[in-house]
This record gives sequence, structure tokens and C-alpha cells, in this order.
Amino acid sequence: MVNEMSDGQNINTAGIKTPFYEDLFSDRAKNMKASVIRELLKLTQKPEIISFAGGLPNPKAFPVEPITEIVNDLLKNESNRVLQYGSTQGVPELREEISKRLKRKWNIDGDADNILITVGSQEGLELLGRLFLGFKSTLIMEAPTYLGALNAFHAYNPTIVSIPLDDDGLMVDRLEEYLTGAEKHGVMLKFVYVVPTFHNPAGVCMSEARRRKLMELSHEHDFLIVEDDPYGELRYTGDVLPTLKSMDREDRVIYLGTFSKTLVPGFRVAWTCAPKPIINKMEIAKQAIDLCTPPFTQHIAKEYLKRGYLDTHLEKIISLYGNKMRIMNKTMNEIMPKEYIHWTEPEGGMFLWATMNQGMNATEMFQDAISQNVAYVTGQSFFADGEGENCMRLNFSHAEDDKIVEGVHRLAGVVEDWGRKLDSSNEDQVKNEFIQGV
Amino acid sequence: MVNEMSDGQNINTAGIKTPFYEDLFSDRAKNMKASVIRELLKLTQKPEIISFAGGLPNPKAFPVEPITEIVNDLLKNESNRVLQYGSTQGVPELREEISKRLKRKWNIDGDADNILITVGSQEGLELLGRLFLGFKSTLIMEAPTYLGALNAFHAYNPTIVSIPLDDDGLMVDRLEEYLTGAEKHGVMLKFVYVVPTFHNPAGVCMSEARRRKLMELSHEHDFLIVEDDPYGELRYTGDVLPTLKSMDREDRVIYLGTFSKTLVPGFRVAWTCAPKPIINKMEIAKQAIDLCTPPFTQHIAKEYLKRGYLDTHLEKIISLYGNKMRIMNKTMNEIMPKEYIHWTEPEGGMFLWATMNQGMNATEMFQDAISQNVAYVTGQSFFADGEGENCMRLNFSHAEDDKIVEGVHRLAGVVEDWGRKLDSSNEDQVKNEFIQGV
Repeated sequence: MVNEMSDGQNINTAGIKTPFYEDLFSDRAKNMKASVIRELLKLTQKPEIISFAGGLPNPKAFPVEPITEIVNDLLKNESNRVLQYGSTQGVPELREEISKRLKRKWNIDGDADNILITVGSQEGLELLGRLFLGFKSTLIMEAPTYLGALNAFHAYNPTIVSIPLDDDGLMVDRLEEYLTGAEKHGVMLKFVYVVPTFHNPAGVCMSEARRRKLMELSHEHDFLIVEDDPYGELRYTGDVLPTLKSMDREDRVIYLGTFSKTLVPGFRVAWTCAPKPIINKMEIAKQAIDLCTPPFTQHIAKEYLKRGYLDTHLEKIISLYGNKMRIMNKTMNEIMPKEYIHWTEPEGGMFLWATMNQGMNATEMFQDAISQNVAYVTGQSFFADGEGENCMRLNFSHAEDDKIVEGVHRLAGVVEDWGRKLDSSNEDQVKNEFIQGV
Repeated sequence: MVNEMSDGQNINTAGIKTPFYEDLFSDRAKNMKASVIRELLKLTQKPEIISFAGGLPNPKAFPVEPITEIVNDLLKNESNRVLQYGSTQGVPELREEISKRLKRKWNIDGDADNILITVGSQEGLELLGRLFLGFKSTLIMEAPTYLGALNAFHAYNPTIVSIPLDDDGLMVDRLEEYLTGAEKHGVMLKFVYVVPTFHNPAGVCMSEARRRKLMELSHEHDFLIVEDDPYGELRYTGDVLPTLKSMDREDRVIYLGTFSKTLVPGFRVAWTCAPKPIINKMEIAKQAIDLCTPPFTQHIAKEYLKRGYLDTHLEKIISLYGNKMRIMNKTMNEIMPKEYIHWTEPEGGMFLWATMNQGMNATEMFQDAISQNVAYVTGQSFFADGEGENCMRLNFSHAEDDKIVEGVHRLAGVVEDWGRKLDSSNEDQVKNEFIQGV
């Protein structure tokens, strides 16, 4: 079929031997590239580096004792069930417990049949891509947006329209402008993807007024809203905002939640709450992807909810992370050169988002940061269109308190260096212009 | 965008109200239907039914004590790590252990970098679909073939060519005929998917001669081979056959293995062993699907291998299932009406495959079987092209020994009834022909 050689290799047009199977990859696979962010993250693994890069929960927030108790009980009393295959939709009692908690905590209506258990919210995003997206479909994402959602949706080749964020979340007036134009051009808008509460990477919350406006727009223009809410439970200060799903009277909101940030990430147990016809199709799609989420870890999560452990544990996490957030913010206020950089001041979640002056490039700066033993995630990773080069995401949940202080000091030094360099090159430019002007 | 109504519903052409989002589904999603087999399986859940339908391991084969020991050790000594996010490729020491075992047990070369951990082998199949298949690609599957593979590959819209099986596995001469023709027509053959050892559903093994021939054909025609081997460890009698992967000198074989049948299914830990460039792309694709397989269950599997528990445990499973297989086979030989039905006599695995006379329909017969409180899986589910209506898959690993005997008796009654019915309708037909002939 191709220029075959006896050793299973081909010679390509450049005369280089390549394995024969390179020709067999789908176009989809040929375009797959390792993400820049993952390559950068590898650099941050060295022990001497203080990393604000990952999005990792703090192991101090892992409830090891209750998990040990639950696992021993399950293995003693229910081993036949918890070690066996389970249904694709997920363990019924877990879905029941989630449904009760959503009602009690977030005023979200939805019974166990409205819930599908997934391998992390990432799988929920993948399934939504599969259900709704294709070559001729459009979706709207915030700019910046969650990197994992970008990856999941990209696989289905849709058109991604980016609408910017500010301190009050998605700029809904910009969305409205877009929608008016798009309708005239026959755009097939599938859904708007938002992280309205403690945004990743931006740390901000969508204001209540904007939430209401977004719901109105979805009514007027008939699109779905995907509300990704991994951090909603992690509020350290300020007033609780209503979830979009709690405002939903017309089955327009698909709500994603997870245990990764409240219990542990290592179980990979998350859920999607959506109208039944959508859950049914997600279930069929999931059947082809992995048959079911591990029943063993689902049963642990179920017992954790059932025994009422989550609420007391959340208090502990909130105190731990809230303190880290305040330490980072306070240190930044004390030491960061504000003439070059500003940042969001979140009320919860795991991240804050720093924006440097135009012309300062966080990707170029990254090597310097690494050599100063401090790491962040470069802003460009979070934009569908390659913007955000002067931005960075800083995680405050994982590092030790004193390391946060030390790391912010190191980072401030790097930012200051690069800011001054830019100043002097701007001065040079002014001089050059002056000389040319003469 | 569509005929919008204030309550989030549309009126379709038949005048029926449908939720507005039905219009937003991708074509892919519009074509998704709940699988017939799953609907049938729901009927088999009643306690009075003796089910040969599922593909479930027997809970008696779950090593609960060693798992309890391991989990307590992990939570005591490594909780920070086993409860945290992990790498997409999988826990390095688990990949190391699998690599060592593959070498020792199956003479398969491949280091930890050649291995990707997946959420069940099902996810491996999904990833291979994503990497290789698209609208213009062709793959070859056995007829019958594994239902989960059909589901995974179907999602990518390839052309599926079915090549029949016999008691010696894939009929490789038929494959050769096909390949000769296909080459002339410019077919882009991506891979041949086989379950060469203790086939699901057919129970048979591909002979060693055919394995060698298949490897030669892959060399001559430059296609990949996907060797799905969930049951290879479960041999109860007969001589061990070499895996295709162990014969692979040219990186042509992608090997899928799993802990679902040897340890427990509830962990959802499986692996793919393949050339590094393929593993790298699978890893990128998996990143978008679920970030990582649960580290918690991966670490349990790792310790299980590391502590050398698997080999002794396999002896126990082999004795348990081997006995069940012999009981089913013996009872079938004693009681099944051989004028209407014959079946494969496997040497391992979890299934045997029964074929009834032409004209006897296992799907039509299913309701009768259920009313006699016995269940199987209908044959058609395992064919890409809707054949196999006179076939059924019988699982022998899950039911209690005495239930196997009782269930086979019940099934024999149903088969005999339907066989006689067919005989008499054939007689009627002959009479009618005779009368018409007069």
C-alpha cells in the first residue's frame, strides 16, 4: 500500500525512515501534539523549585482516616459489589447522594436519573464534545478558559469563539453583541462553556447580574450552558452566588461537579447533572469509551457522603486554602512591582491570575523563573486564540505557607528584571525615534 | 435559531413538542441508540433467573484479603501519592511491573515506556479508534467479534470488514483473499482486530499456524494488528499458544491486557503495550478524555504484582472457572438436543458459543428463555453485519455450579421446543409444496 520495506519502515519524501504505521494515523492523530503546558510542567518537578504551576490539591487536605475506615468497611461487607463491574451511568446510591446534596447545598433540582458519574469532569467534557460538537458547530468559551475543556472540545473540530472575562466574569454584553451578529449569519451555536465560580485560570466569579443575563440570553437564542463547577465548594470569603443550574427553569444548563477538589483527585470520580435525554446519550457514548467509572472509588465517595463526612472536611480545606490564598495575596501586595503587574483577588478556588504590562512575555520569562526556582503556568495555554502572552496562572493550594512567601519573592524579582528590561528597551526605542527624528 | 417557544421546547414536523436541545445534537449523537444487548441484560437481573448472559468474573475469585492488606499499607505509607492526580501514561512502577510480567510470562518485549494504563481495555480500544479510524478507513474484525470493540470503533465511522472464525480462530486464508482484492481497489486498511486466545464470544483460540500466517500477511500488506487479550491468563487445559505480540519483530502488534479478569473489574485498570510513537499519541488523546486512570486503583494493582500475589491467585481462578467450564460442557453434552444445536468446547476464558440450526432465531427465543428463567446473549450483537441470529453466547464463570446444571437443563428445553416447532413448520411447508405440486 505504501513504499514498503522488509523491516516495517518507509522512506518519506525527505529520505528519512519512518515506521510504516505513521501513514495509518488518522488526520486527527497526525495533528496531535504534546501540550506545551505539560512540557513546562515537567521542568517544575525538581524538588528545589517552588511551584505555583500545577492545579494540585494539597495532600494535607486528604481525609486519609475516614477513607481508611470506609475502605475497610466496604471490603468487609460489600466486596462482591464494590470490586465488580458497575453500570455505565454510575452507582445508583452515589447518584442519589449527589442529587440530595445538590438540592440541599445549591438548590439544584435533579434526581439520580439526571446524574451520570464520569472519570473526572474531564470525561464529562469529552462526552459533551461527542454529543454536540462537529465540524460545523460553534461553541463559546471564556478568554481565558480551562485548558482541559479546550483540549476536550478541540478534538471535535468545532469553531471556538472566545468572549473575554473581567473581574465580574464573562462579559455578557460582549456575548450579546456576538449573538446578534451570529444569528444573522446562521451560526449553529451549541453551547456556552463557563466556569462561573472561582474561575480556572482567572480566579474570578461571574456576578449574579451577569448570571441572570446569561440565562436570559440562552432563553432568547436557544443555546445550552455548560456550567463547570469544580471549585464552588471552596469559598473562603464573600457571599455565596447562585449556580446557573439553580436558575434553570427550561433545562438549558448542564452542570459538572467533581470530588477531585473536595475529597481526593486520585479516585477520579465526578458527575454531570443534566436533562435525562442528554444523560441517556452521554451514557451510550461512555459505554463505548470505558464501560464504567471504577465502582470501587465510586462506592468510597458514596459512603463519604452518606456518613456526612464531607461538610466537616470542607471546613478544614477552606481554612487551609483560605489561609494560603491570603498569604499569597498579602505577599504579592507587599513585594510585587505593581508598575509591571496586577492580579485578580479571588474569594475562593485555587488560582489567581496575574497580568503583566503589554510587551512582557510570560513564556519567554519562564526559563528565568525556573532558574530562580519558581514556576507558574504561562497564560497563552488558556486561550483558544493564542492570546494571553503577558499573563500567568498562580496556584496557591499546593505549596507550604513559607514556600508561598519565598516563591512570591523569587517571582517578584524575575518580574522586576523583565519589567526594567522592557522599560530600558522602550527608552532606547524613544531615543532611536528621536535620533531618526533629527 | 429554531422555532423557539418560551418553555424551551420546539414543535417538530410531526407536531410533537421536543426539547430545544434535540436540534443541537451532533449527527453522531442523533444516531446513538441504546444497545439491544444492554436492554436484554436488564431482563436478566431478576434473582430467579439463571444468567449465562453477562461477562462477569465470579466474586469468589476476588482476592479480598490481599486487597485489604495492600490498601491499608498504601493509605498508611503513601497516601499523599496514591490519592493525588497521576500522570496520563500511568503510574511508572505499575508500568514497570507489567512490562516485567509480559516478558516473563509471554515473552513480550516492551519496557515501561511502551505501556499506557487505561480505564479498562475499553479505553484502549477507544483510543485506537481515535488514533487510526475515520470516514475513509477500513478495519478488519472477526465474525463474531467483541461487542465493546464494535462500539468503540463504530464511533469513528470506519468501514468494518468481517472475516469469519472457525474452531481455529480467524480464517486467515479468507483474510488473504480479501487483502489481495482490497489492494487492487486502493483500500486503506488500518488494522486487523483479533481476540486470538479464548475469544469473546466464540471461546476458540487462533491456531499457531494461523498466528504465523497473520504475522506474515501484516508484513506483506503493511497493516497493524490489535491483539486484545483479556483472557490469555485463564487457560484451564491444553497447551499455551504464543501471543502475536511475542512474534512481532517489526512493531506491528498493539497488545491490550487487563486486570479485570485476573484481579478485579472494579478497579478499571488495563494497559496497552505498543510502539512508543503510538503510546505517545494515545497519551495525548487520553489527556483530553480523562486526564489519568485513577492512581488509587493503579497503585493497588502495582502492589498486587510487586508482592507476587497474582500467580498464586491465578491458580485459584483457573481451578474455579475450569471446573465451571467442565460442568457446563458436560451438562450440555448430556442434555442438549444435538440435532438442533452445537457449540464450541473452549480450553479457557469465560464463554462458549452455541450455534443452532438455520432458521432458529436466538432473539425470538429469548423471551421464552426468560420465562423459563434462563438467560444468554443473542448472537447478532457480536456481528458487524447483523448475522448470527441462530447463535448465542453462554458465560460459565459467574453462576454457581449447581445453577449451571439447572440452567443448561432449562435452556435445553427451550431449544428443543423451538427445534421441534421449526421441524413441524418445515414439514408443513413440505406438505404445502406437495399440495401445490398436486
